[in-house]
Amino acid sequence: MADKKMVEEITSMDVDFAQWYTDVVKKAELIDYTSVKGCMVIKPAGYAIWELIQRQLDERFKEAGVENVYLPMFIPESLLQKEKDHVEGFAPEVAWVTHGGLQPLQERLCVRPTSETLFCDFYKNDIHSYRDLPRVYNQWCSVVRWEKETRPFLRSREFLWQEGHTAHATEEEAQQRTIQMLNLYAQFCEEVLAIPVIKGQKTDKEKFAGAVATYTIEALMHDGKALQSGTSHNFGDGFARAFGIQFADKDNSLKYVHQTSWGMSTRLIGAIIMAHGDNEGLVLPPKVAPIQVCVIPIQQKKEGVLEKAYELRDRLKKTCRVKVDDTDKSPGWKFAEAEMRGYPIRVEIGPKDLEAGKCVLCRRDTREKTEVSLEKLEESVAQLLDTIQKEMLERARAHREAHTYTAESMKELEEIFSGGSGFVKAMWCGSQDCEDAIKEKLSVTSRCIPFEQEKLSDVCVCCGKPAKKMVYWGKAY
Amino acid sequence: MADKKMVEEITSMDVDFAQWYTDVVKKAELIDYTSVKGCMVIKPAGYAIWELIQRQLDERFKEAGVENVYLPMFIPESLLQKEKDHVEGFAPEVAWVTHGGLQPLQERLCVRPTSETLFCDFYKNDIHSYRDLPRVYNQWCSVVRWEKETRPFLRSREFLWQEGHTAHATEEEAQQRTIQMLNLYAQFCEEVLAIPVIKGQKTDKEKFAGAVATYTIEALMHDGKALQSGTSHNFGDGFARAFGIQFADKDNSLKYVHQTSWGMSTRLIGAIIMAHGDNEGLVLPPKVAPIQVCVIPIQQKKEGVLEKAYELRDRLKKTCRVKVDDTDKSPGWKFAEAEMRGYPIRVEIGPKDLEAGKCVLCRRDTREKTEVSLEKLEESVAQLLDTIQKEMLERARAHREAHTYTAESMKELEEIFSGGSGFVKAMWCGSQDCEDAIKEKLSVTSRCIPFEQEKLSDVCVCCGKPAKKMVYWGKAY
Repeated sequence: MADKKMVEEITSMDVDFAQWYTDVVKKAELIDYTSVKGCMVIKPAGYAIWELIQRQLDERFKEAGVENVYLPMFIPESLLQKEKDHVEGFAPEVAWVTHGGLQPLQERLCVRPTSETLFCDFYKNDIHSYRDLPRVYNQWCSVVRWEKETRPFLRSREFLWQEGHTAHATEEEAQQRTIQMLNLYAQFCEEVLAIPVIKGQKTDKEKFAGAVATYTIEALMHDGKALQSGTSHNFGDGFARAFGIQFADKDNSLKYVHQTSWGMSTRLIGAIIMAHGDNEGLVLPPKVAPIQVCVIPIQQKKEGVLEKAYELRDRLKKTCRVKVDDTDKSPGWKFAEAEMRGYPIRVEIGPKDLEAGKCVLCRRDTREKTEVSLEKLEESVAQLLDTIQKEMLERARAHREAHTYTAESMKELEEIFSGGSGFVKAMWCGSQDCEDAIKEKLSVTSRCIPFEQEKLSDVCVCCGKPAKKMVYWGKAY
Repeated sequence: MADKKMVEEITSMDVDFAQWYTDVVKKAELIDYTSVKGCMVIKPAGYAIWELIQRQLDERFKEAGVENVYLPMFIPESLLQKEKDHVEGFAPEVAWVTHGGLQPLQERLCVRPTSETLFCDFYKNDIHSYRDLPRVYNQWCSVVRWEKETRPFLRSREFLWQEGHTAHATEEEAQQRTIQMLNLYAQFCEEVLAIPVIKGQKTDKEKFAGAVATYTIEALMHDGKALQSGTSHNFGDGFARAFGIQFADKDNSLKYVHQTSWGMSTRLIGAIIMAHGDNEGLVLPPKVAPIQVCVIPIQQKKEGVLEKAYELRDRLKKTCRVKVDDTDKSPGWKFAEAEMRGYPIRVEIGPKDLEAGKCVLCRRDTREKTEVSLEKLEESVAQLLDTIQKEMLERARAHREAHTYTAESMKELEEIFSGGSGFVKAMWCGSQDCEDAIKEKLSVTSRCIPFEQEKLSDVCVCCGKPAKKMVYWGKAY
């Protein structure tokens, strides 16, 4: 039977984490592969998670004064080339349109890998006076980067994201917005996705092409690898000078604007899978679970059972996202399927429960079962969803704490990473030579210079010279 | 002053309708032009309308059992070519990607002009059994068609839309879904956009490339031109045969699926502008107005006025989308701006109103003013928004009735179209020769064969042979 096969075929995450991940995205029906190399179909179960992410993130954006817009998906080659660092960073990985209809184009267009250059071209004509500032715009769209190695949600040639692009009158205001959006991202990950993150700054080596400073939120996955989950960039006035974006200030002097950009993507779905999933499949935090409660009738052919299941669904749907599994599969298969798909709560209701006026709630995350009175079902379910959301964050935080280490020497750093993965905190002198040496030797990258600094020792873990900063190191996705 | 200029610069719609349209989209800040020929920026005021359209249409989709997905934006050339009629229709107007990064691609990819071929390629692997049917999927995305002549919202090289793609076990079910979605579109246009539409079938000449039958909703604009506002196609099993999409039916026999597709786009924003706008600017139906109520303080420096304006906003924001214009412009300018932007209701509140416990509500659509008690403000505003929504539809319907004509001969047809534009109903023999002849002679196209047929005469308006159907003719956008 197809369902049994489905459940049995998940590779254990301890055996092969990468294969476990691929199995889960396929068996939970989040994606499908396509004839277009490196691009995927996001299926209903996957897209519904994205819709919940979008809706909740967009609400927070609107509260933070962000307005949505839509800019073209094409960038003329000459426009991409206007900011030197930016084009160097992106040109090697863009897709080029050379023909429109039957005619060759006079100038090639790239499919946007990110839209800084388009926003600059727009702001150049849109901003004239200090009265026009700030501009705090965002767009939800897809972008294309011609990656060689791809993995569903984590790295694909096309992906969905939001990209915010702002323009400000002063350096201070731009910096403030950069950090405000990073904080918003961090809160969103913790409160909605139940994923704790480390906030910090990227080293110069790892920063965005064209940025003065890049800030990041870094999350730790089950296998101890780090996932960059969102970034926020301060561009200073570099793009403004390259594109000529000037405004008349209150004193009538012409000044360049200061800009920022920030983005999160469908990669977050990968983060959810790898931060919360287990060997039975997906485990979804209630706030992004398209189905929060699945009612499974036991002995559904017995009188009244199915009717009761529908009645419970109708009652619950006023307060949560619920469905009944009324297919002719056995309860066991239904349980396995509900687990695979990560529904936070399963409600079991059979003839005996009917008589006793009770039902069983089973948590997906801990698999713990409790009997509750049918009378108080809405209340019990709402409370349990809250508890699950909260405890999933706590467990993810505990997992991260248990896999965060400190190293005071290259030997220690090496030992830790040879024994597995995790975040490793170590002191750094600030030189790129040391950063390169560590990356070369251990195949790990600097994840960030965290805002919460600690002084582990006085010297750089690599060269022994005086240390300037504590850095998080990790293996990256 | 910039605002005065803005308001004064709208061309009257009677002088030059096309220029009036362009003025409104620019002055109401819906769009901006870009360096990318034929592509536009949708600015916050324009995108917010699209968000309201999306949200309300998507709700109706979900009630109709539609699930959202996301497919790649690229189509390999060989995939596009699989269905003969389809590729002939679209190949001349697609954009081709020939390079990924620094390498030429082995096979060119086109940027989707529509996604039938991608959905077929996906369904081919996704559908196996009758248990997998129906598939009722939709995606919100942008598509690209390399048009030569472009106009904001009406025809641009890239535009935003939704495209639904379904697969069914039987011909009947596919036909039913085709009509169900057309009806949903028609209801949406009338109930949400306040635009009445004619439902009907396209002639074979005008149908979608690859469809067995195309159905359409046609709306009449202020200038008497017709706007195709949404289409729904029945593909029969043509695509299924070309792509090999088969399923095992209950009797275990292999059958081809029957498919449909249906779409509406940002063109609807153009329809709103041209169906409701006037010489003062945009007129938005309340259901798609990002700002439904604009509170304008009179003599705002007088004690208590501005505070009262904020208080009213805070009260109103629980039941509608409201803002206060507290800039230092004069009330007159604020009125003109509020009219330009199409806010359905403007609330005027000054020192005398404060004393009397009243304020003035001014309707954008009729410019009618009424005094209402501050105590009952929420109620009065809610009622007025309902009334405006309803009366805008009635007025648009009356306008259409007044510009719908019947013709029983070529001479009559010619006379009507030489005197202006509108819908002209005329009998047709069903031959494409007559359709071509009318188009050639009068520069008008058959808009649809309406579901509500009338028998105007026994003979074709063109050739005089026996008539089969009544057709709506019009000048198209």
